[in-house]
Amino acid sequence: MIQKNKNKIINDPVYGFIKIPYDLVFELMEHPWFQRLRRIKQLGLTHLVYPGALHTRFHHALGAMWLTTQALDNLKLKGVKISDAEAEATCVAVLLHDIGHGPFSHALENSIVQSVNHEKISSLMMLHLNHEFGGRLNLALKIFNDQYTHRFLHQLVSGQLDMDRLDYLRRDCFFTGVIEGMISSDRIIKMLDVRNDQLVVEVKGIYSIENFIVSRRFMYWQVYLHKTVLAAEHVLIAILKRAKQLAKQDVELFATPALHHFLYTRISSKQFSENPHHIEQFSLLDDNDITASIKVWQNHSDLVLSTLCKNILNRKLPEVMITDLPTPSKTITTKQKKVAEILNISYEDAAYFVLEGKVENNAYNTALNAIKIIYQDGTIRDIARASDQHNILALTKTVKKFYLTWYEVF
Amino acid sequence: MIQKNKNKIINDPVYGFIKIPYDLVFELMEHPWFQRLRRIKQLGLTHLVYPGALHTRFHHALGAMWLTTQALDNLKLKGVKISDAEAEATCVAVLLHDIGHGPFSHALENSIVQSVNHEKISSLMMLHLNHEFGGRLNLALKIFNDQYTHRFLHQLVSGQLDMDRLDYLRRDCFFTGVIEGMISSDRIIKMLDVRNDQLVVEVKGIYSIENFIVSRRFMYWQVYLHKTVLAAEHVLIAILKRAKQLAKQDVELFATPALHHFLYTRISSKQFSENPHHIEQFSLLDDNDITASIKVWQNHSDLVLSTLCKNILNRKLPEVMITDLPTPSKTITTKQKKVAEILNISYEDAAYFVLEGKVENNAYNTALNAIKIIYQDGTIRDIARASDQHNILALTKTVKKFYLTWYEVF
Amino acid sequence: MIQKNKNKIINDPVYGFIKIPYDLVFELMEHPWFQRLRRIKQLGLTHLVYPGALHTRFHHALGAMWLTTQALDNLKLKGVKISDAEAEATCVAVLLHDIGHGPFSHALENSIVQSVNHEKISSLMMLHLNHEFGGRLNLALKIFNDQYTHRFLHQLVSGQLDMDRLDYLRRDCFFTGVIEGMISSDRIIKMLDVRNDQLVVEVKGIYSIENFIVSRRFMYWQVYLHKTVLAAEHVLIAILKRAKQLAKQDVELFATPALHHFLYTRISSKQFSENPHHIEQFSLLDDNDITASIKVWQNHSDLVLSTLCKNILNRKLPEVMITDLPTPSKTITTKQKKVAEILNISYEDAAYFVLEGKVENNAYNTALNAIKIIYQDGTIRDIARASDQHNILALTKTVKKFYLTWYEVF
Amino acid sequence: MIQKNKNKIINDPVYGFIKIPYDLVFELMEHPWFQRLRRIKQLGLTHLVYPGALHTRFHHALGAMWLTTQALDNLKLKGVKISDAEAEATCVAVLLHDIGHGPFSHALENSIVQSVNHEKISSLMMLHLNHEFGGRLNLALKIFNDQYTHRFLHQLVSGQLDMDRLDYLRRDCFFTGVIEGMISSDRIIKMLDVRNDQLVVEVKGIYSIENFIVSRRFMYWQVYLHKTVLAAEHVLIAILKRAKQLAKQDVELFATPALHHFLYTRISSKQFSENPHHIEQFSLLDDNDITASIKVWQNHSDLVLSTLCKNILNRKLPEVMITDLPTPSKTITTKQKKVAEILNISYEDAAYFVLEGKVENNAYNTALNAIKIIYQDGTIRDIARASDQHNILALTKTVKKFYLTWYEVF
Repeated sequence: MIQKNKNKIINDPVYGFIKIPYDLVFELMEHPWFQRLRRIKQLGLTHLVYPGALHTRFHHALGAMWLTTQALDNLKLKGVKISDAEAEATCVAVLLHDIGHGPFSHALENSIVQSVNHEKISSLMMLHLNHEFGGRLNLALKIFNDQYTHRFLHQLVSGQLDMDRLDYLRRDCFFTGVIEGMISSDRIIKMLDVRNDQLVVEVKGIYSIENFIVSRRFMYWQVYLHKTVLAAEHVLIAILKRAKQLAKQDVELFATPALHHFLYTRISSKQFSENPHHIEQFSLLDDNDITASIKVWQNHSDLVLSTLCKNILNRKLPEVMITDLPTPSKTITTKQKKVAEILNISYEDAAYFVLEGKVENNAYNTALNAIKIIYQDGTIRDIARASDQHNILALTKTVKKFYLTWYEVF
Repeated sequence: MIQKNKNKIINDPVYGFIKIPYDLVFELMEHPWFQRLRRIKQLGLTHLVYPGALHTRFHHALGAMWLTTQALDNLKLKGVKISDAEAEATCVAVLLHDIGHGPFSHALENSIVQSVNHEKISSLMMLHLNHEFGGRLNLALKIFNDQYTHRFLHQLVSGQLDMDRLDYLRRDCFFTGVIEGMISSDRIIKMLDVRNDQLVVEVKGIYSIENFIVSRRFMYWQVYLHKTVLAAEHVLIAILKRAKQLAKQDVELFATPALHHFLYTRISSKQFSENPHHIEQFSLLDDNDITASIKVWQNHSDLVLSTLCKNILNRKLPEVMITDLPTPSKTITTKQKKVAEILNISYEDAAYFVLEGKVENNAYNTALNAIKIIYQDGTIRDIARASDQHNILALTKTVKKFYLTWYEVF
Repeated sequence: MIQKNKNKIINDPVYGFIKIPYDLVFELMEHPWFQRLRRIKQLGLTHLVYPGALHTRFHHALGAMWLTTQALDNLKLKGVKISDAEAEATCVAVLLHDIGHGPFSHALENSIVQSVNHEKISSLMMLHLNHEFGGRLNLALKIFNDQYTHRFLHQLVSGQLDMDRLDYLRRDCFFTGVIEGMISSDRIIKMLDVRNDQLVVEVKGIYSIENFIVSRRFMYWQVYLHKTVLAAEHVLIAILKRAKQLAKQDVELFATPALHHFLYTRISSKQFSENPHHIEQFSLLDDNDITASIKVWQNHSDLVLSTLCKNILNRKLPEVMITDLPTPSKTITTKQKKVAEILNISYEDAAYFVLEGKVENNAYNTALNAIKIIYQDGTIRDIARASDQHNILALTKTVKKFYLTWYEVF
Repeated sequence: MIQKNKNKIINDPVYGFIKIPYDLVFELMEHPWFQRLRRIKQLGLTHLVYPGALHTRFHHALGAMWLTTQALDNLKLKGVKISDAEAEATCVAVLLHDIGHGPFSHALENSIVQSVNHEKISSLMMLHLNHEFGGRLNLALKIFNDQYTHRFLHQLVSGQLDMDRLDYLRRDCFFTGVIEGMISSDRIIKMLDVRNDQLVVEVKGIYSIENFIVSRRFMYWQVYLHKTVLAAEHVLIAILKRAKQLAKQDVELFATPALHHFLYTRISSKQFSENPHHIEQFSLLDDNDITASIKVWQNHSDLVLSTLCKNILNRKLPEVMITDLPTPSKTITTKQKKVAEILNISYEDAAYFVLEGKVENNAYNTALNAIKIIYQDGTIRDIARASDQHNILALTKTVKKFYLTWYEVF
């Protein structure tokens, strides 16, 4: 079926309308691998706390691509030379930057698909797509991998002020309703410029950048690392680990074929890269496989599995405690024993109900692709040094938090 | 696990915050049947056209309940007597008004679960819940069924200006990004009053009501009955009908246990009501069962089933034509023959790829629970007569449209 | 002082940012006649009812110009040929379309400046500006006066779907907070096209156009002709008429020089056009002249003048009655006599406190520059005929209302 | 004219609707002194940079009063005892907190009305009003002056987290379109509680408070102390100073009677307090007096006055330079000499065109009414210490900036 990209517009509650800028972008959007992103929520289980947060990686990828066209148009107006081929390739690189995400990505990588991470899979998938599209993604791949001369194009794709971040902050704010995380992507984009092939920000945009850094930090603690979201995610990891363990013991588990593949097959990183069957199966996985299986597992005879599944489905989430230091092992032991007793299961199995973890975040990182401010006299300075107070510098420190989640009542 | 409702607030991007007003509301929200609504999208496949439209029946039910508390508070301020028990019961009735919806409700009722509709199931489920909650839903049920003296309470739950409609219009606008459908629920609620146990609207709110009627009509044609949404829904119906047909022929199909139950069992309306096993299975069905199964079916050996499944998953939607009169049967025959030829399948099987249908909508209906305007002198008039032009009267006419969707290329 | 237009952006809460597209636009914006629009509220006394409605004709002119750039860009993308000179001229025509508005335009034209209306003055001012700018506005004037071949450019400036209307609806909604009047200017602009040098709207935009017509009607009755706004405006007219009458009798009145000029000079339409001194004085008038003078007049010895001035300043507005037929003269006589008695003034003077009037509005007018819908087969139809119900046709009828405003208590 | 407060609602684009909670509030709103705030812009000349920023002190006072009712309702729900009399008095205190502001307050206090500041005048006016209202403002005055036992009520009126700040941030963001300054007043209000008669914030609201502090800092540098806004304000101060100087020399100047009073009379702080004629005249001053006079002065024979007036009216603003240290006097001398030469005026008079100044701001001040965070164990900590990074502590430092504004071209 031939559909024309020409003037194709898509309603987006965040930006109003998104226009598809290139035929190649449209063709990639139509690919099953990209359509699959429609079925993977951007924020996993966050909707258990913020019920509006159901937006998908599909929508985010489109949004980031749209911001990229805005940024490129704006840079061109300022006299930066960007060819049509470069613009198209940058859009494509942004569009596909998250193509390798699986369902509940973080949980999946910590349980069933342990040998490869989503960055690796994204790269693999882009290579396959490039092959399928007869090399039309060559330049996009170069830019994506930071192997292209005009490095600012890569910085739009991946960096501390990339279009990915601008879109996900605005989009996550919009759908969660957390207005404290609001940024002015529009203004930031208008303040971008290029010097020596590097992205810089005009000094009059400095407060918008500070706002962006502070908002991002805000979203981390208030949304992405919200303690109830963390708790839910740990229950999910526990479920998937238990399922994997049962599978290893050849216990029969209901699963869609794609999920069955990853539950019952041991795949090394090398095998994943070399045997196309694995990536084919991976490309069939989405949120529905996980959730549909968990729904069946809630009636499984394994008490650990069924209890955890019932809990997550009915939003019976564990208690959570956040601390500055790791929980003493004695506390954990005590809680684990109590669970073993109540559920009448082994001490080892009780460990699925008492989970500890660590989260860390630094709002801004001077080391990696720092955000550069350009002054009217041409001086360029790192934002952490440019700010008139030490507040941004203060935010470069990594914050670590330890947490413990556990069930007390069943 | 005991959680307290006290001051429990939920972030909602539409209204800011939703406050849970009663313990009973909170307890019902925690019930697995209500949590299940988290996994059923309010607008089914609409997200294939409006990618933001992923909000759930859970969120909508909460929103409508919240508007109900606002409406009740406002009526009380105007001197309408409403007891705490009545207020709680009205909130509960609104909260549960859609509890019986299945996944992709309209498609399901036209294919697999044909003997009972969602209204019937909602009633059944509410009866079960009332039993489980020891009769605490008695008054809510009376109000829901319009058996309570103060009929305005029922009108808040179900009528042409009920809290359900106010919430779904605002919410669907918000998540689709279709701003033409925007209404001022806030102003409408402030204009409500009660006379002779009937809901009335102060005359100075007349333009807000007209705007509400026109916006609703707008949303019907632009979103709910958008031709591409209709097309997608018909592909889904075709898929489910085909699956049901194969099941009848004892062809093996992958399915979650709950979906398997409805695919392979013939259930009469009477059986559904009397045998609790059916409602139990129904309460396990959600969007994931359908989508996960379709994903597996795309590789099924039945060409009709696999083709349709691949198409919907990869958003290869059929052509659509909207007309004022039914399509001549000759046109359909021709298209069907062409499909049979291309796919090398029987003429009967080709019918799955050429689908016709009819949609109708009237923006406002004078017959059913008309919207009453009250003038300063106490006169009460139907909005269709109260409007200073005949525009609302014009909208009482039922609009019928016929459509044909078909595949030409595969 | 040389300022560069290059990349000049202006914060606008309605659209985010407005970019100045041409040097000529920027230079015109800097002209004292345009800067004067900063001091003239778009909606006159409406802020007495909607306190946020303080936005100016300056802001509206910028907004309409900005929408024009969007519309032109979009038409160009669809293949409509528009030269840079044409685009610039259209922007300039839109920017200046209201340049001749005086403060509280409607009130002023009904009292002090009676011989010429603002359309006439806009034309005069544009001629002067063209002279001052050495003919650089030639094409803009042609387009403004509908004397240019490509008539769609004029239709963007003035017609039933012009950029003026799109901007004022969105802007007035935004600042009043009346969300029922919301339109999707963005979508409407994307649906525009050109056939035979005429503006047409793609058929898939039909509901957005209906929404625009209904919203505009809504804004008329809810905002522009809101009865309290009408009442306030009539008090203002009464004040200015009384002041003019006193001036004719050579009574001394405080006034700024510009206002003094129009109070104490009799100017015919011909004189206004021919003697540049009049337009010079007019260009010095703004909201401040009127309000500052009224503030002084509240202590004037003339009881009629001082009472009316005190009332408007302290928002003591008269009663208003809206009726379908004119008020019987007996009613007016009675009220006028009562006022004469209470204030101990003559029956004639009492007429300043009992004012009648007529308002009329038709939401859509088929006669003038009708809105044309283009179907996929190329057929073009008037929107009133294209709509699938008769609701828009119903709105072509002119609605007339009569009102009486009067003071009872002082 | 008797109007009833009952259910009186006012459209506010920021919050939707504002409801008048008490008759006393309504009566005070109707007082000429409060109506006068309709004619005083909240942000003075800021609209020269952000054209939407035309909102008034009237609107802000209403908004802050509305947030106060929300805060009080919320505290009552949490069990804090607040009597109706206390609630009414707190609303009144917030409503009137800025009643003494004159037009372009900061500029006025630095030029014409130098002996008393707006805080002093607010107090005086409230005393007068209390007298006029027969003592009904007694409690409001106590709360305003922090002489009431329940000190948290005063903290809602005036403190680092008062309703004044919450409203002005949201309102100024809304009307300027500067979305970086967005705060969640709704969430902050829901997090408030009271301990030992002091306002505290629940710990889970900590990020909303940090966002509030950072946003406020943002608004200072991006809006309130925006260099072009500063420049405009300094031109205005120069104008008023020059006019005052001319008045002292008995030069005749056009002025409204109220402005004339303050131009031509020398009033000590004591006289202002004791002679009611001064406050009466002050209560007649608003933006219109200043602007209308400046418009006339642009044609005055005094070259300094007329040049400055023409410049501000036509937005010909001076150059601005912001520095960390004061400008060397030599630089100033040079610029002043140049102006003297170009305009052919004395070196002293040239000082009106070369203005220096200092601005300082600390986003958060630990000393004054610190913001207290309450932890789940009951501990209370200052927000600067409670934040998990030192970013808020960093913001307690006072930031000073020096600027110079000067004209080079005329």
